[in-house]
Amino acid sequence: MDWRRDGELGNAHPQGRPAQGARPVVNAGLTRIPAPFVVFLGDIQDEVFGKTGLGVAQWRPQDCIGQVRLPHCLVDAGVPDMSIESAKACGARALIVGSAAVGGRIPEGWTASLCAAARAGLDVVAGLHIRLAELPGLAEAARAGGARLVDVRVPPASLPVGSGRKRTGKRLLTVGTDCACGKKYTALALHQELRRRGRDSTFRATGQTGIMIAGAGMPIDAVVADFVTGAAEVLSPENEPDHWDVIEGQGALLHPGYLQVTVGLLVGSQPDAFVVCHDPLRSSISGWPDFPVPSAATIIERTVTLGRLTNPAIRCVGIALNTSKVTRAERERLLKRYAAESGLPCVDPIATGTEAIVDKLLRDFPA
Amino acid sequence: MDWRRDGELGNAHPQGRPAQGARPVVNAGLTRIPAPFVVFLGDIQDEVFGKTGLGVAQWRPQDCIGQVRLPHCLVDAGVPDMSIESAKACGARALIVGSAAVGGRIPEGWTASLCAAARAGLDVVAGLHIRLAELPGLAEAARAGGARLVDVRVPPASLPVGSGRKRTGKRLLTVGTDCACGKKYTALALHQELRRRGRDSTFRATGQTGIMIAGAGMPIDAVVADFVTGAAEVLSPENEPDHWDVIEGQGALLHPGYLQVTVGLLVGSQPDAFVVCHDPLRSSISGWPDFPVPSAATIIERTVTLGRLTNPAIRCVGIALNTSKVTRAERERLLKRYAAESGLPCVDPIATGTEAIVDKLLRDFPA
Repeated sequence: MDWRRDGELGNAHPQGRPAQGARPVVNAGLTRIPAPFVVFLGDIQDEVFGKTGLGVAQWRPQDCIGQVRLPHCLVDAGVPDMSIESAKACGARALIVGSAAVGGRIPEGWTASLCAAARAGLDVVAGLHIRLAELPGLAEAARAGGARLVDVRVPPASLPVGSGRKRTGKRLLTVGTDCACGKKYTALALHQELRRRGRDSTFRATGQTGIMIAGAGMPIDAVVADFVTGAAEVLSPENEPDHWDVIEGQGALLHPGYLQVTVGLLVGSQPDAFVVCHDPLRSSISGWPDFPVPSAATIIERTVTLGRLTNPAIRCVGIALNTSKVTRAERERLLKRYAAESGLPCVDPIATGTEAIVDKLLRDFPA
Repeated sequence: MDWRRDGELGNAHPQGRPAQGARPVVNAGLTRIPAPFVVFLGDIQDEVFGKTGLGVAQWRPQDCIGQVRLPHCLVDAGVPDMSIESAKACGARALIVGSAAVGGRIPEGWTASLCAAARAGLDVVAGLHIRLAELPGLAEAARAGGARLVDVRVPPASLPVGSGRKRTGKRLLTVGTDCACGKKYTALALHQELRRRGRDSTFRATGQTGIMIAGAGMPIDAVVADFVTGAAEVLSPENEPDHWDVIEGQGALLHPGYLQVTVGLLVGSQPDAFVVCHDPLRSSISGWPDFPVPSAATIIERTVTLGRLTNPAIRCVGIALNTSKVTRAERERLLKRYAAESGLPCVDPIATGTEAIVDKLLRDFPA
């Protein structure tokens, strides 16, 4: 997979650097994140708190030259350990904050490392709830080092309202029956499979980890409500007729907290095709125990109903199950059952790959 | 109609004033707007640009003691003309910016009046796209006068994510087949009719003019996407079992730009009842000529489908038509036709009042 094709969001190599003394704080939005980089994991003990760093190291191995870990860190991204100094000496241009403490916080003990990186001229990139410039001393360190502070959760200014106008190019959106059920992974895997077959494809990121993996994207849940459809339109602009944008979904259409994000992303993306991501072992929405997880069939029907507004031909091209917690035999049984019930290819992107879905996609949408 | 009942958002009389030197800029959100007040109309020539001022003067006659107009202003809110000085002398506590130039701008020539008001100690209230404090000299004037600058389009900080939990009390939401088809007016008229019958009711505002009329509310379209359902929950909190919140709708469920706002407001409001507002003469979504206005029946079905997530018993209790541009005979024909087709009371809130809908509401939901 080559994340660095020109003219795409996947490109992680911006040309310019801000002049010393320029305002060092930028909003990532569609801005590109520089590479190569190191991931910072702090002193976390549990992979749950390092999923951004682990995801970036997994999906951008060619750009991730190392990890910076504090004493007692128990999480390992599988790349060389480095100090800030050695990262700089090895050519790193950025440090990606790949971990967070409970509540998305940055512990005081980590701030010194971030300041040292900024002072050494490494851009500091994070997807926190607070802005990096609010961390004590970091803005000054960035000014001193000529580094940028990149908050990937800050959307670009001046987004338009959604127009609903048909755009050229093809789009696939991953949707889910809940949050955290494989939408990002499935989109990345589908994109990778399309590229493997020589198809023109771009992964369009909508969440913080996805944006760091892609090097750019749109933090769709942080956009002001009025502009969500417009932000989705900006994220997947006009393109060549046979080019696929593979768009990372967010939230879920029957999620009592986040469905508005999902709806806006769906209508603004105007997808030709979508894939439903589903965890067959989950019975209620994570964190909302009174709300059952809808069936994949319900989500297919609801996605078509709402998505038709901007793409009357929208169709489901497959189901991606998360079967990581079942036996191999049970996985095979589940995949067969969902395929038989839906009449669609059904895969586990990690266990079986996404070939069956891409086969159908390219049959349904011949070049 | 008494907008000043204690313990409600309709109450427009905050107890305290900020101390001199305190930060003068506040976000309206659920903050109350002081009364009595004057409306500022600038020098506009067309009522379209003064709809906020005209709406506030119409719906809060007891609090609106006058209007401040510049030379050549051709719009008249029907209240006494005043200078800033005479407004102050008459006891005004705030000046509401009730007009805007094209693009929502404040012309340079108006800023001097706003500064004079702030310097005289009148709070300045506006629902602009920019913050009041960005107008040249206004923040300084407010500090000097001990006045507040209230931007009603700025949502409160620290909104929660929507929980989907059932709240006590009853809720009615106005929904529309498009923007600008009577959702605010209908909600105000229904609220007024409920009050007239001695029912406990609160108008819950979601747009700038509604917020100024109610004295408080939630600028739902300015909330960050992740928090729209949560903001709607905050707007209509737990209440007495027989209390009605009459919630001003926003956008429309088949609107290609704004449907995400509508969806989040619907699910967070968990309405027991809704009223569809419709302009029977409009064929396409205003400003989106390629998108037809859906039928009232389509919007009823879609609202029930989506609203069931947080209120399985949601039901439509009436249709509010805007028949301002047809003859009296045609109006009667239209109202009869829509009533016959839907089996629901059908009114024009301005021409016929909302009694028929409130009759049904109170039959369907007896105290």
